[in-house]
Amino acid sequence: DFLNALDEVTPAFGVAKEELEQVVENGIIHFSPSIDEILRSGELFVDQVRTSTRTPLVSVLLHGPSGSGKTALAATIAQASQYPFMKLLSSDSMVGFSESQKVAAISKIFADSYKSPLSVIVVDGLERLLDFTPIGPRFSNAILQTLVVLLSRRPPKGRRLLIISTTSNRPILTDLGLAESFDAELRIPPISALSSLVYVLDEVELFHDRAQRDMAIGLLQQAGFDSNDETRSRLNIGVKRLLSVIEMSRQEPEAVAERLTTSLMGLGM
Amino acid sequence: DFLNALDEVTPAFGVAKEELEQVVENGIIHFSPSIDEILRSGELFVDQVRTSTRTPLVSVLLHGPSGSGKTALAATIAQASQYPFMKLLSSDSMVGFSESQKVAAISKIFADSYKSPLSVIVVDGLERLLDFTPIGPRFSNAILQTLVVLLSRRPPKGRRLLIISTTSNRPILTDLGLAESFDAELRIPPISALSSLVYVLDEVELFHDRAQRDMAIGLLQQAGFDSNDETRSRLNIGVKRLLSVIEMSRQEPEAVAERLTTSLMGLGM
Amino acid sequence: DFLNALDEVTPAFGVAKEELEQVVENGIIHFSPSIDEILRSGELFVDQVRTSTRTPLVSVLLHGPSGSGKTALAATIAQASQYPFMKLLSSDSMVGFSESQKVAAISKIFADSYKSPLSVIVVDGLERLLDFTPIGPRFSNAILQTLVVLLSRRPPKGRRLLIISTTSNRPILTDLGLAESFDAELRIPPISALSSLVYVLDEVELFHDRAQRDMAIGLLQQAGFDSNDETRSRLNIGVKRLLSVIEMSRQEPEAVAERLTTSLMGLGM
Amino acid sequence: DFLNALDEVTPAFGVAKEELEQVVENGIIHFSPSIDEILRSGELFVDQVRTSTRTPLVSVLLHGPSGSGKTALAATIAQASQYPFMKLLSSDSMVGFSESQKVAAISKIFADSYKSPLSVIVVDGLERLLDFTPIGPRFSNAILQTLVVLLSRRPPKGRRLLIISTTSNRPILTDLGLAESFDAELRIPPISALSSLVYVLDEVELFHDRAQRDMAIGLLQQAGFDSNDETRSRLNIGVKRLLSVIEMSRQEPEAVAERLTTSLMGLGM
Amino acid sequence: DFLNALDEVTPAFGVAKEELEQVVENGIIHFSPSIDEILRSGELFVDQVRTSTRTPLVSVLLHGPSGSGKTALAATIAQASQYPFMKLLSSDSMVGFSESQKVAAISKIFADSYKSPLSVIVVDGLERLLDFTPIGPRFSNAILQTLVVLLSRRPPKGRRLLIISTTSNRPILTDLGLAESFDAELRIPPISALSSLVYVLDEVELFHDRAQRDMAIGLLQQAGFDSNDETRSRLNIGVKRLLSVIEMSRQEPEAVAERLTTSLMGLGM
Amino acid sequence: DFLNALDEVTPAFGVAKEELEQVVENGIIHFSPSIDEILRSGELFVDQVRTSTRTPLVSVLLHGPSGSGKTALAATIAQASQYPFMKLLSSDSMVGFSESQKVAAISKIFADSYKSPLSVIVVDGLERLLDFTPIGPRFSNAILQTLVVLLSRRPPKGRRLLIISTTSNRPILTDLGLAESFDAELRIPPISALSSLVYVLDEVELFHDRAQRDMAIGLLQQAGFDSNDETRSRLNIGVKRLLSVIEMSRQEPEAVAERLTTSLMGLGM
Ligand SMILES: Nc1ncnc2c1ncn2[C@@H]1O[C@H](COP(=O)(O)OP(=O)(O)OP(=O)(O)O)[C@@H](O)[C@H]1O
Ligand SMILES: Nc1ncnc2c1ncn2[C@@H]1O[C@H](COP(=O)(O)OP(=O)(O)OP(=O)(O)O)[C@@H](O)[C@H]1O
Ligand SMILES: Nc1ncnc2c1ncn2[C@@H]1O[C@H](COP(=O)(O)OP(=O)(O)OP(=O)(O)O)[C@@H](O)[C@H]1O
Ligand SMILES: Nc1ncnc2c1ncn2[C@@H]1O[C@H](COP(=O)(O)OP(=O)(O)OP(=O)(O)O)[C@@H](O)[C@H]1O
Ligand SMILES: Nc1ncnc2c1ncn2[C@@H]1O[C@H](COP(=O)(O)OP(=O)(O)OP(=O)(O)O)[C@@H](O)[C@H]1O
Ligand SMILES: Nc1ncnc2c1ncn2[C@@H]1O[C@H](COP(=O)(O)OP(=O)(O)OP(=O)(O)O)[C@@H](O)[C@H]1O
Ligand SMILES: [Mg+2]
Ligand SMILES: [Mg+2]
Ligand SMILES: [Mg+2]
Ligand SMILES: [Mg+2]
Ligand SMILES: [Mg+2]
Ligand SMILES: [Mg+2]
Repeated sequence: DFLNALDEVTPAFGVAKEELEQVVENGIIHFSPSIDEILRSGELFVDQVRTSTRTPLVSVLLHGPSGSGKTALAATIAQASQYPFMKLLSSDSMVGFSESQKVAAISKIFADSYKSPLSVIVVDGLERLLDFTPIGPRFSNAILQTLVVLLSRRPPKGRRLLIISTTSNRPILTDLGLAESFDAELRIPPISALSSLVYVLDEVELFHDRAQRDMAIGLLQQAGFDSNDETRSRLNIGVKRLLSVIEMSRQEPEAVAERLTTSLMGLGM
Repeated sequence: DFLNALDEVTPAFGVAKEELEQVVENGIIHFSPSIDEILRSGELFVDQVRTSTRTPLVSVLLHGPSGSGKTALAATIAQASQYPFMKLLSSDSMVGFSESQKVAAISKIFADSYKSPLSVIVVDGLERLLDFTPIGPRFSNAILQTLVVLLSRRPPKGRRLLIISTTSNRPILTDLGLAESFDAELRIPPISALSSLVYVLDEVELFHDRAQRDMAIGLLQQAGFDSNDETRSRLNIGVKRLLSVIEMSRQEPEAVAERLTTSLMGLGM
Repeated sequence: DFLNALDEVTPAFGVAKEELEQVVENGIIHFSPSIDEILRSGELFVDQVRTSTRTPLVSVLLHGPSGSGKTALAATIAQASQYPFMKLLSSDSMVGFSESQKVAAISKIFADSYKSPLSVIVVDGLERLLDFTPIGPRFSNAILQTLVVLLSRRPPKGRRLLIISTTSNRPILTDLGLAESFDAELRIPPISALSSLVYVLDEVELFHDRAQRDMAIGLLQQAGFDSNDETRSRLNIGVKRLLSVIEMSRQEPEAVAERLTTSLMGLGM
Repeated sequence: DFLNALDEVTPAFGVAKEELEQVVENGIIHFSPSIDEILRSGELFVDQVRTSTRTPLVSVLLHGPSGSGKTALAATIAQASQYPFMKLLSSDSMVGFSESQKVAAISKIFADSYKSPLSVIVVDGLERLLDFTPIGPRFSNAILQTLVVLLSRRPPKGRRLLIISTTSNRPILTDLGLAESFDAELRIPPISALSSLVYVLDEVELFHDRAQRDMAIGLLQQAGFDSNDETRSRLNIGVKRLLSVIEMSRQEPEAVAERLTTSLMGLGM
Repeated sequence: DFLNALDEVTPAFGVAKEELEQVVENGIIHFSPSIDEILRSGELFVDQVRTSTRTPLVSVLLHGPSGSGKTALAATIAQASQYPFMKLLSSDSMVGFSESQKVAAISKIFADSYKSPLSVIVVDGLERLLDFTPIGPRFSNAILQTLVVLLSRRPPKGRRLLIISTTSNRPILTDLGLAESFDAELRIPPISALSSLVYVLDEVELFHDRAQRDMAIGLLQQAGFDSNDETRSRLNIGVKRLLSVIEMSRQEPEAVAERLTTSLMGLGM
Repeated sequence: DFLNALDEVTPAFGVAKEELEQVVENGIIHFSPSIDEILRSGELFVDQVRTSTRTPLVSVLLHGPSGSGKTALAATIAQASQYPFMKLLSSDSMVGFSESQKVAAISKIFADSYKSPLSVIVVDGLERLLDFTPIGPRFSNAILQTLVVLLSRRPPKGRRLLIISTTSNRPILTDLGLAESFDAELRIPPISALSSLVYVLDEVELFHDRAQRDMAIGLLQQAGFDSNDETRSRLNIGVKRLLSVIEMSRQEPEAVAERLTTSLMGLGM
């Protein structure tokens, strides 16, 4: 059943693509120019792996706060590459695995990628793959060592590999000696401008009419969410969490704006 | 016998419902408006999971002091949902399990829930499920990592899941990096108002006559339990512990009021 | 042979009763009124479990210094209940067990108790059951978690259970988060009054004649053991250790009083 | 082969006696009155176990510096008892055993003793049985817990047991919570009086003639070994180490006195 | 399959040579005189092992910052020896191995070398072979002990062995007690002189024409990379990282110089 | 294959002798009187074990800095004894062994020695046998406990055993409680006098002619290696390391003296 377990995490190519689609559940909302820049940088790395003869391996790190959209953006870049091998490596598919099963599952995905001339692997949620807990700290050194080697190991002759990793805990990568393994880093920022927030609210059609919208904006401004200076803004929320708060507010149609504002304030921003 | 052990914790649907009923042993006594508010919030989350297309997963945390009624309230909300899959996940049914058996049992309940279009799981007593001990501290990192993933993992397409977790040790969830996994939190307060205390005493008919009741209230007031200011009140007891103290006092019919007051004072409030 | 090992610790009911008798090796000497109060309180808990419908589970903790008679008193209360299921759970019957065997043995005793409508379990020497050592500290977290759950878990419908636990190390129960599991606590004090000491000496007939007795009392008074103020008394010895010192002194018939006084002083009281 | 290993450590009764004889390799030299007192105390404990009905178990601890003669004295007391069951429990016969094999071997010796009406066990070198190392500190908690229980557990009805333990590290017994397990303690002092030293030298006939003896005593006095005040004496050596130093000196017949004095000084006394 | 795993890491001699070639992916660029000195020193050690009768074993350590070219230089020296046995020992070929499998694989390579009269082993990336992580720190003591012994153990009679080890973490070798195992050390410096940098840029033909080259040099000077004093230079980059930065810059033909300068500055030099 | 592994480490008697010869690779150079004194002391211990009836076991410790010649001297003393059983116990023959295999291999050598009336065992490199690492520190407590017992355990009746242990880390033996196990200690000093250094240079015929020799001595004096006061001398090198430095220097015939002096200075003396 260990082999069965591994089979489950190694679906056919088509399924892997579906996996990448599934994590972009609510699409990409272009609420800020930085979103486009990130996607464009991703495109460049995809090109470099395809063309350069000197660097058959490129490792990129996407980092940002919890729920800022790292997984969705990494999956979007990977899918756009149209490489013959595309794969999502995440702890979601390793629940209940022992440490050695996790090591085996991770190694297998890399071994599989070496069979394709051009591959992209999304290594999603490094801190989770490492079973990291701040108390101690505790983590799996076996998985860490496996990742350190795999993130730097040359693919076999004639094979090329792009690795896109994500983490919501950038500092521990330095502590663990994992930060040196990346050729480049991209920061995924949270939403902190009121204009971005409103962009999302409009996109998901939270409000029934303009009056409700105006009232909401008024409430948000009163709550101190309208600073233009990003570092001083009280607003600081990942797009994933924002979508969750929006859906909760939607349950009370008669008090959407109040619920939204209270929830955003309750998040301790 | 490992499989047998797992079978034991995976009873048929009907039994699961019975489990939820059993933990509300002494009913819900409405001794304070906050009880009704908690139950109403629970109803809203039940609605959100049923209706919103953007949030197929909602995780709620009920936290409060030992014996404050968390398990009974979580079970009451879950039962009221009338979802086709309702399940209580608690360490009570995992006595003697090894760490990997616990991980397997927890994973199985979530895997089972994914087979139903609409599910609710009560994850009861997080600190206990984690085998947490303040000395060290010690806990099962394997179970922690399993829970962190399961509390955030999207259910498969077309499935929706409400998770209601409880804990009497809220601070450690932050230390363990588990707090971020919840979409919302509800605090279950202890009884601190004399009026709430008397409401319960009346409900369970501790006193034989009004004279005995008046004397008891007098004694309780003398003991300093009558402050209206919640933060200054000497009274601070979970409803579960209060019911236990009441039953002990009932054994000495001739000295019920004295025994009750002394016991409440002895609890070091 | 693991199963054999478990069989050995699960004797028939009659044997269990004999076990309870055996630990009250030297009877109960009523050297102080507190002994009677403890026995009376025990009786009340026995009644509560038998009669109250709201509290089918009651957990009591007996704590006091080493050798103060905790095991003998707990066994005496349990035996007096005359419940159909009475059981002594002690590390004496788990020598050489692995951690998981201990967990299994403990769980089995509770599982057995659930088969009887009315049960009492003496959980003797908690610190020993937990394999506790102050250096580290070290203890079995698996056994601790098992005990925390079992001390609070509701028995199945229609079953009632009284748990009487003992420990000579009350403070660690708080550190380990185990203290909250008990509904009530009783302290078993050491012997600190000279009158109690003399009561025991008379009871076991250490002296051959009144002269010898008078001389011994004189010596004990000179040694500073006659303070009436308990907190200032130099005398501070558990009844079990006292009986041991008495028997040693008895070996030198010609110098009983001297030997007794010297031994009591040598114990560093 | 585990069973074979256990068989090896459980020789027939006669062999056990031989074991006890063997550790008193060089006899008992009565170099000081304290030696006789220790042997007499041992006799009294032997009597108590044989006669008292209230204390079927007595545990005694012999402690003193390395090489002070603890093992030889414990074995001498045990042998003199002439009890039907006499046994030496030492790590010498457990080399290469795993922790659980050691626990099993220890338990087996106690189980064997319970088959005889009257038994004595020499538990030799507690710190060694516990696999104790000061760095950490490290020790086997499984063996510690086994010993704590076995040193206090009542033998079955009708059986009596004397336990004589030895250690060269008395303080750690307190740290480990093992000190409370003993009913009495005897200290085995090192040799610190010049007269005792000379007594031993004469007994083993180190010197060829009186002149050599006189010169040696002169040298030892010059080296500062003649203080009569024990606490100030520079002399401080266990009899076992002293015998070893003597035999080394004996190899240089022409310079025995010098070699002896230099060696004793080199030991950093 | 453990044996299979070992077989995979023990390819025939010819393959081993190919392995050594493969890690010198981008050739050796002679950007500084120190490169030639390192290669010449390597030649001398090769001669010593071949000729001296007193030192059949020589261990050399190459250390320097991440990406400074250690592996490529060690492989180049080994290949040039033309010894009958040449082998690369690296964690790249041990992904997913357990600790004991790693120990076995390492031991096997040394055992194989003992079959050849003249051997060279490149022990590449000591910190990685040891599974070293700065947090804790954690590392495999079993692998460390194996390496300490193998780095100093005399080969069998008539066999000679040159060991070339590399590490990017020289300080931990001292902490681990591994530094004493080496007969000599060579430091591999990063690129810090602008002239060396330009040498590499020319070698890999990054620029299309002289104008572009001049502009780039100008930009680099402005950025503070032209100090001649090595210790004050802002430039500090391993040749491997430099090649990676160059290939990235090459993707934007219209802005090569800017991208190069920005990337070098972004590396926090 | 575990048994096979053990067989490999237990060669026939003749082979064991060959092992002892092999470690004295470059002979014993009598560069200082202390070498003769050490060898003479060794002879005395050999005599004591052969003749004294009171001490059938003698344990000696040889300690000194890395490469000072401990192993060669211990092997020389052992070989000179001409005892029927002579054995080298070293981690060189235990590469890849698990902890329990090491314990078994060590125990087996001692068990084998007990079959011969007169035996000598060289226990070489205690810190290595213990798998000691200063970080932590880490070491094998199982091996430590095995050695502590074996170094003190009386051989069976009629058997005599000399144990010669070596270590380059004397202080940790005290920390580990292992120092008390030895009857005597001998310090093996490094080379610190210029005369000793020159003695070795002459012995291995490094120089072609007297002129070269004079120049070398001149250079060494200039470098500060000519102090006669040992504690102030800058010279401080084990004979093993010195021989290694000499052979390196020999590779550059045209610059032997310079290379030698530079190397000795580079060793940070
Ligand atoms: N511009 C955007 N960037 C990223 N995600 C977006 C964007 N707009 C909408 N989304 C949606 O927001 C969600 C982002 O969730 P995602 O899981 O990617 O966040 P995350 O940062 O990986 O979270 P976590 O820290 O929990 O791993 C997805 O449902 C995605 O469809
Ligand atoms: N308003 C109320 N809320 C919750 N429980 C109530 C209420 N009124 C009565 N009860 C009864 O009080 C008891 C509450 O016990 P419960 O096990 O839920 O507490 P808990 O907070 O989960 O305790 P623990 O901290 O030990 O897990 C139940 O028997 C329940 O029937
Ligand atoms: N009043 C008394 N209370 C308790 N024990 C008594 C009393 N009088 C006499 N005894 C005797 O004293 C002994 C008490 O020993 P017991 O094992 O119960 O002590 P303990 O406190 O459990 O010791 P430990 O701390 O070692 O577990 C028993 O032999 C018992 O028969
Ligand atoms: N008076 C004495 N008391 C004890 N031993 C004596 C005495 N006289 C001579 N001996 C001899 O001295 C030796 C004492 O060694 P023993 O092993 O008993 O010491 P130990 O204190 O147990 O040592 P360790 O601390 O190493 O366990 C024995 O050989 C014994 O025969
Ligand atoms: N002078 C040089 N020295 C070393 N490598 C060079 C040199 N010139 C070019 N290179 C190329 O630079 C790369 C050096 O990478 P290499 O893996 O050897 O670095 P490293 O120091 O071992 O890195 P890491 O610290 O990651 O182990 C190789 O591709 C090699 O071909
Ligand atoms: N006087 C001497 N004493 C010891 N060894 C000598 C002497 N003269 C020459 N040698 C040679 O020096 C070498 C000493 O190496 P040896 O392995 O004994 O050192 P060591 O102290 O055991 O080293 P390590 O600390 O690494 O264990 C051997 O090759 C030996 O033949
Ligand atoms: Mg994510
Ligand atoms: Mg609860
Ligand atoms: Mg007790
Ligand atoms: Mg001893
Ligand atoms: Mg490298
Ligand atoms: Mg050596």
